This record gives sequence, structure tokens and C-alpha cells, in this order.
Amino acid sequence: MSAPLTERNARVAAARKLTRRAGRDAAGAFLAEGRQAVSEALAAGVVTDLFATEAAAAAHADLLAGATVRVVTEKAAAGLSETASPQGLVAVCPLRDVPVEALATAPPRLSVALAELNDPGNAGTVLRTADACGAGAVVFGSGSADPFQGKTVRSSAGSLFHVDVVRSAPLDVLVEAVQAAGVRVLAAAGDGEVALDRAGADGLLSGPVLWLFGNEARGLDDALAARADHRVRVPMRGRAESLNLAVAAGICLYATQLAQ
Amino acid sequence: MSAPLTERNARVAAARKLTRRAGRDAAGAFLAEGRQAVSEALAAGVVTDLFATEAAAAAHADLLAGATVRVVTEKAAAGLSETASPQGLVAVCPLRDVPVEALATAPPRLSVALAELNDPGNAGTVLRTADACGAGAVVFGSGSADPFQGKTVRSSAGSLFHVDVVRSAPLDVLVEAVQAAGVRVLAAAGDGEVALDRAGADGLLSGPVLWLFGNEARGLDDALAARADHRVRVPMRGRAESLNLAVAAGICLYATQLAQ
Repeated sequence: MSAPLTERNARVAAARKLTRRAGRDAAGAFLAEGRQAVSEALAAGVVTDLFATEAAAAAHADLLAGATVRVVTEKAAAGLSETASPQGLVAVCPLRDVPVEALATAPPRLSVALAELNDPGNAGTVLRTADACGAGAVVFGSGSADPFQGKTVRSSAGSLFHVDVVRSAPLDVLVEAVQAAGVRVLAAAGDGEVALDRAGADGLLSGPVLWLFGNEARGLDDALAARADHRVRVPMRGRAESLNLAVAAGICLYATQLAQ
Repeated sequence: MSAPLTERNARVAAARKLTRRAGRDAAGAFLAEGRQAVSEALAAGVVTDLFATEAAAAAHADLLAGATVRVVTEKAAAGLSETASPQGLVAVCPLRDVPVEALATAPPRLSVALAELNDPGNAGTVLRTADACGAGAVVFGSGSADPFQGKTVRSSAGSLFHVDVVRSAPLDVLVEAVQAAGVRVLAAAGDGEVALDRAGADGLLSGPVLWLFGNEARGLDDALAARADHRVRVPMRGRAESLNLAVAAGICLYATQLAQ
């Protein structure tokens, strides 16, 4: 076995650039770190390069059987990690940006658009929930977190490889285009005029549906919310003023799954 | 106006000890930081001491009108903060631990118990959701995050002041006691034998109900889940293997609110 590659190796250095957005956009690739993400990337057949420390290669020998693994030093692996505790296992995968037009020409029964949702952990959690509820696409509007950064990839728990991802789309144009294609657009809003249970009873959740979710603190921009067909609130019996955004999105998407 | 208090002032030094669990337990008090938490603490009438920098006192003059505010230096405020960006506004509040027996003698229609849920952000989010859905109490079982640490207080968004909080309760004893009091115990489990929508249709969600939620990665301990009356899964149509714990809890609690 040859010596582990160091951070000076050309492939390792090229992969390291993918820890920054500019590097990802220039190379058209991103990093998937850790067992779960690498396992999903391998299952999806999209891995173009695979790095592991000797310890990680041994620990994940079952997963890596048959794959071409480049063994790297601990230091090199740390440079490829976007976390405080590097996992020693990183795959390079091509960025797979779906063009926004696809949502209008062949609308999924359920899709999601994020408006200025800038916490990467929340963005990944909504992506994971959208996948669980059968959504076909998640749109990251301008001002939202980059779905291909480490924390989003991690919190999506593999769902990034299951669902079509659209980046930096102008959401006002998107809303108009999908409405013209017969999609009902629902805006999640704490002061929405329709309660979620009422929306379900009235048949508003049966597809095709696009859900709009806004910023964690400010919610949706009024002008964008006004373009939706309905503004929907999660009714709350208790005393909390609002729900965490990822929780509210989960409740809306689950209710929609049940109605479809 | 006298000079702002420094970190060497006795009250400031005493409050600073509340940033650690041992200090909170010894003093029987905790810190609520930032406008939202302080606002809720003032509304609940539980503030025993209130610190603000000159800038924060000016910025929140509306909120603080009528309250006794001790002006502190920026450095003193930073020492009272558990965040990277101190907000300059901190209230001292008494710990309000409700004895676990209260859940059996006067069971709320809806209550929640957390088993080894150790991420403070998730714990606060579940507390906030439980409050929104009308829960009367949240039990933090041993091994769970401390509800009175800064990150939990913050992510609970004030709900800590609305809902009864029980700490470090032995959950097996709790389950038996509330079952004897006529409460139906439901365990959230990815492989549960009852789907959540089925549980609703079969009347299992009408109260009084206690929900058990487990660890983010490992889920609920099998022995504890076996003590529940039913193990309930959130049905998923998509390809994600599981949901984020706080999202799954939100879906379960919202469905229960609708059924009550």
C-alpha cells in the first residue's frame, strides 16, 4: 500500500476548494462527508472521487468494498471537512442543479421553494422532510443557504441525492410559471388566512402543490406571499407565538402528503 | 446615572455562575437572554434581577419601562451570555422545577417526555412545539439536555415560561405512574406498529396523552418503548430513511392537537 496522500496532493488540493461556494461553482462539484452521505452518494452512482483516512477505510470497509478509495492523511481529511470533528470519509460528487423550467414543464405533485432561508441546518432539515413526504423538487431561492455546503448536505441526511435541487431561482417568476402550469401555490405564513386543517378539508392540499417557506425570523416577504394562491397558517392551541421554521414546514408537508 | 457595573460586581459575578449547570442548581436560578426571553420572563413576573448594557437599555426602553434595570459594561454582559454574539440584555429567573408526581395527580391532556434528547437546540425546539400544541408539561428525562441552559432557553423562544418543566425524572417510573392515572402513553418510533394517521383515525390521540421522544441518532431505548401503550411511526411516502427528531415530534404533536 502506498503512503497516504497529503494535503499537497493535487486531487486533495482540488477537492479542498469545494469547501467554499466559489470553488464548488467553478468546479461543478461538492463534498459529501461521513458514512450516511457517502453511502447515499455511492448508491446514487454519482461519486467521482472518494477519500478516506486509513482508520475510516477500515471502519467502513463494508461500505467501501468495490469502490476506488484514495487513502489520505488525517490532516488532509481535516482539510476536506467542514465540521469541527472530521469523519475521515469524503466523496466528491457533481453538482446537479436542475433548471427551474423543469418545474413548470413537468410539475411534481409536491414541491417546495425556500425564500431567504439562510440557516444551512434548517435548509437541510426541510430538504430531508420534503423528501420524506414525497416531494419531487426543492428550490433554494436567492438569499437561501447553498444546498451543497457541508452543513446542509449533512442535515439533509442523504435527501440531497433523492430530490431535484434548483438553486438561486427568482421565486416570483417561478410562482407565476408553475401557476400557469396548474400548480396550486401555498405560502406558509403565521398570519395566513387559511388554517392548515381547513386547507386539508377544503381540498387545497391535493396536488400538484408548491409550498413556499420564508426566513426563520422574518417569514415570507409580503409581496411574494401575495402571489401565492393561499396563505396558510398552522393553527396553534397553546401560548407559543410561532413555530420553528423547520417544524412548521414539516407539519405542512406531512399534512400535504396525507392529502395526496 | 452611576457607572455601569463591571464583572467584578457581586451581583454580576453571582449571575455569571448561572451559565453553568452546577451554578444554576446551587442557586436555583437561570438566565434568560435577549429581548424575546426577557419579555416573556417579565410577562410571567419571574424576573429577580435584570442586567442591560447602556446600548441595550436604550434599544429596549419600551420593554424595560417600569422594571429595575442594572446597567452593566459590555464585558460584564458578555460574561453573562452563552452565545457568540451577546445581546446585552439578561434576566435572572428562579428555576421552576415541577415535581414529577404532579403529572400523575393532575395529568394534562397532552404532555411530552424526552429520553436522552441531548441536543439543547432540539430540546428547546420540542419545548416550543409542545407549548404551541397546547401541552401542559415537558419532562426532560435523565441524559437529556438541561432545559435551563442558554441554548435551550433561546430555542424554546419563551415557551419555558408557559409550560411546566420536570427535570431528570426516571422515565420508566413516570410511564407507569401516568398510565395508572389513565394517561395513554405513545412512543414515537421509526419502526412503530401504528402509523400516525391510523392512530388518529382509531382515537388513540385523544387525550390524556403522554408522548415519548428519544435520542436524535439512536431513537428510544427498546425497553422504554415497550412500556408505552403504542409505538407510533410517522408514515413516509418518500425516500428519506427518517425525519429530524424535532420535525417528527412536531408532526406527532400537531396531529394530537387536532384530535383533542
